[in-house]
Amino acid sequence: MFKKVLVANRGEIAVRIIRACKELDVKTVAVYSEADVDSMHVHLADEAICIGPGPSTESYLKISRIISAAEIANVDAIHPGYGFLSEKAEFADICEQCKIKFIGPSSRVISTMGDKNSARATAKAAGVPITPGSDGIIENEEQALHWARKIGYPVIIKATAGGGGRGMRPVLNEATLISSFQAASLEALKCFGDGSMYMEKLVEKPHHIEFQIVADSHGNVVHLGERDCSMQRRNQKIIEECPSPKMTDALRKKMGDAAVRLCKKIGYENCGTIEFLVDNNRKDFYFMEMNTRIQVEHPITEEVYGCDLIKEQIRIAAGLPLSEHVLKATARGHSIECRINAEDPARNFAPSPGKINLWYTSGGRGVRVDTHVYSGYEVPPYYDSMIAKLIVTGATRDIAIRRMRRALGEFTVEGIKTTIPLQSKVLTTSDFQNGQYDITWVENFLRQEGMKS
Amino acid sequence: MFKKVLVANRGEIAVRIIRACKELDVKTVAVYSEADVDSMHVHLADEAICIGPGPSTESYLKISRIISAAEIANVDAIHPGYGFLSEKAEFADICEQCKIKFIGPSSRVISTMGDKNSARATAKAAGVPITPGSDGIIENEEQALHWARKIGYPVIIKATAGGGGRGMRPVLNEATLISSFQAASLEALKCFGDGSMYMEKLVEKPHHIEFQIVADSHGNVVHLGERDCSMQRRNQKIIEECPSPKMTDALRKKMGDAAVRLCKKIGYENCGTIEFLVDNNRKDFYFMEMNTRIQVEHPITEEVYGCDLIKEQIRIAAGLPLSEHVLKATARGHSIECRINAEDPARNFAPSPGKINLWYTSGGRGVRVDTHVYSGYEVPPYYDSMIAKLIVTGATRDIAIRRMRRALGEFTVEGIKTTIPLQSKVLTTSDFQNGQYDITWVENFLRQEGMKS
Repeated sequence: MFKKVLVANRGEIAVRIIRACKELDVKTVAVYSEADVDSMHVHLADEAICIGPGPSTESYLKISRIISAAEIANVDAIHPGYGFLSEKAEFADICEQCKIKFIGPSSRVISTMGDKNSARATAKAAGVPITPGSDGIIENEEQALHWARKIGYPVIIKATAGGGGRGMRPVLNEATLISSFQAASLEALKCFGDGSMYMEKLVEKPHHIEFQIVADSHGNVVHLGERDCSMQRRNQKIIEECPSPKMTDALRKKMGDAAVRLCKKIGYENCGTIEFLVDNNRKDFYFMEMNTRIQVEHPITEEVYGCDLIKEQIRIAAGLPLSEHVLKATARGHSIECRINAEDPARNFAPSPGKINLWYTSGGRGVRVDTHVYSGYEVPPYYDSMIAKLIVTGATRDIAIRRMRRALGEFTVEGIKTTIPLQSKVLTTSDFQNGQYDITWVENFLRQEGMKS
Repeated sequence: MFKKVLVANRGEIAVRIIRACKELDVKTVAVYSEADVDSMHVHLADEAICIGPGPSTESYLKISRIISAAEIANVDAIHPGYGFLSEKAEFADICEQCKIKFIGPSSRVISTMGDKNSARATAKAAGVPITPGSDGIIENEEQALHWARKIGYPVIIKATAGGGGRGMRPVLNEATLISSFQAASLEALKCFGDGSMYMEKLVEKPHHIEFQIVADSHGNVVHLGERDCSMQRRNQKIIEECPSPKMTDALRKKMGDAAVRLCKKIGYENCGTIEFLVDNNRKDFYFMEMNTRIQVEHPITEEVYGCDLIKEQIRIAAGLPLSEHVLKATARGHSIECRINAEDPARNFAPSPGKINLWYTSGGRGVRVDTHVYSGYEVPPYYDSMIAKLIVTGATRDIAIRRMRRALGEFTVEGIKTTIPLQSKVLTTSDFQNGQYDITWVENFLRQEGMKS
């Protein structure tokens, strides 16, 4: 096992990783920006090193500073968390070169799955269903017209380097194809420095369902079921649940087998997630992308399958086989996560940084809170707006929903605005209670509520 | 289901019950003493009624005031929690007469099992092993001598009305028998208003292992495994775990069957606990007593068996059958509870009431906190010193122990003293880590540490 791990992240995931290390008797090194000096991850780690000013481009995204910190602190390994450098093949590569173990898959695998187009080709080669689409990059407008006619409208144009909904345009008919293609390509060039586009059939009102994979260096590859992340606003998940209310045993087996097959094909090692779109018919599914890192919503899988995915990540990176209880994991109960964001739903979800005067988190049976926040903490303006994850688990989906409503009701944040009132409202809808929602649901709901979607 | 429930208790268990009611869509009425006006249970309940001054004899033990509050608030049922009136048959009886459902067993059953001597006789009649002992009350010193010779030394003299270690004396040989008998009887008379004594064989260095029973009004009686509560100081549990590190499948089956048999025999309904002493040989076990109420340490069973015992209590009292997931419950993982008491271990565990300036509870994977306390709360001097329960769960006992050490390390209380440093130390001992402890362990440990036991 490693002696010392550097956590190249901030916020709740940095706290989460430090806790896992403590339970493994591994020393931890936190890195932090000047804006994060009061964050709980700095306080909990054994050592803490400041790596620059607030903006993440000056700190959490500065590979050279993180590597310097790792070398100064003499760590064996780096855990990248999610976001920031977690899916930068270059970072994993530099770690490898510096003989610091990157806790995640190899830079080769990150490269392959990070490019959406090559990921699609890889999935296809592994016999995993993908949406009908262009075989590779669309070079020009003429090719775009050709592929759209071949695939059949509606289609969706996507940037190969895309993410978070940027560089993406749905096209319902030929009238808007060229303009959409140009706009998306321009946006991609601006956001990602790469305007390469491809095209897929647009699956209408699909469900976003993702499978958790755990794979070690001894040839063990298992999936720990699915998470339903269809509850999204602008491609940002706001509520996730495990298992999916739309799932059947037969479909789980088919999708899980496909996910495992793909991971074996690419020699995947560590935790990862295969994201699928599932058709409203709840039968057809299509590979969407792979996240070659831990995900925000990993706790709901942990609760249902009784495991600790961050510890597994560390164990795997240290060359250990999967834990016995992961290899033999079975599902029990139902888990839901709400991402508590410092945003004002009433003001178009504007970020709401500032000082938290009062912070009282829910507790009791089936309630888990992952956060870096406490009473008196000041939310800095530089980062993602998520300030806590509220995870509840119950024996059934109905119990979990009631528990989440209770827990959201107890959660008290004074000084800043949060998404709690919105999530409380969503939980009371019959659509949510009946599991009747797809990835377009939140947008329609917000419109009905007279809020900007 | 009930419309409104009065919670006849305070502290963390009142909060626990209110949470369960909220999840069942049942309205709640808190009662509180003048000293408890700022307690979280008052804040969380739908209604709150003050029932008198701080001392519990003037409030939480005043049956007439609680019944008045129940009638004013027009509740369907009363949940008594633990302690206070929870095992007073008279209180259950008055509730029954007032047509308010007492959430617990009938007053008849509470009477039968509340008297230690009649409980012993009942267990014997149900074919549950009891320690060799006097057949009933010992009337005088001559009978005491007779029974001690018959049973064989060492013996233990106990008050039939006893509890919490009062009115109880171990006797190693005949030299101290008479003086011990007199002292214990006098103490029992003073504490419980009843000096009746009986005698049992003293089991040396036993384990305290208790079985959780859940029984409904439809004839379903199941046990949800055992809790090991051998980690005690002066008969007060300080750390509990589920399952017991000493348990074998064969012994669990035998003891669980005995517990269920006893409950069926007495027509038990609701949650209850059968406490056993288990011999150091880990083979022989003896009925000790039954607690006809929910217990402090119930959460570790909930975590391992994936259920909600307080909700089951309410469901059972409302005439519903046991939940499907309770009937089919299976154990998963290992759970440990530390009772965080406002006491100063360095000063002979003197109570440490006062204002809590800073209160930061642990969180993350596998951590549950049940408490009525928050930053700025003032611990009143009138009540039991427990201010929180820290419950951790992991896939294995080793994981749970490491997690508890991590969680105790994070838990921050400023302004008052707590038992956290003691529990942290106990967790690091090889005896605890190897599961090698009996009910005499804490006493020896404290002596070695140079502390008063």
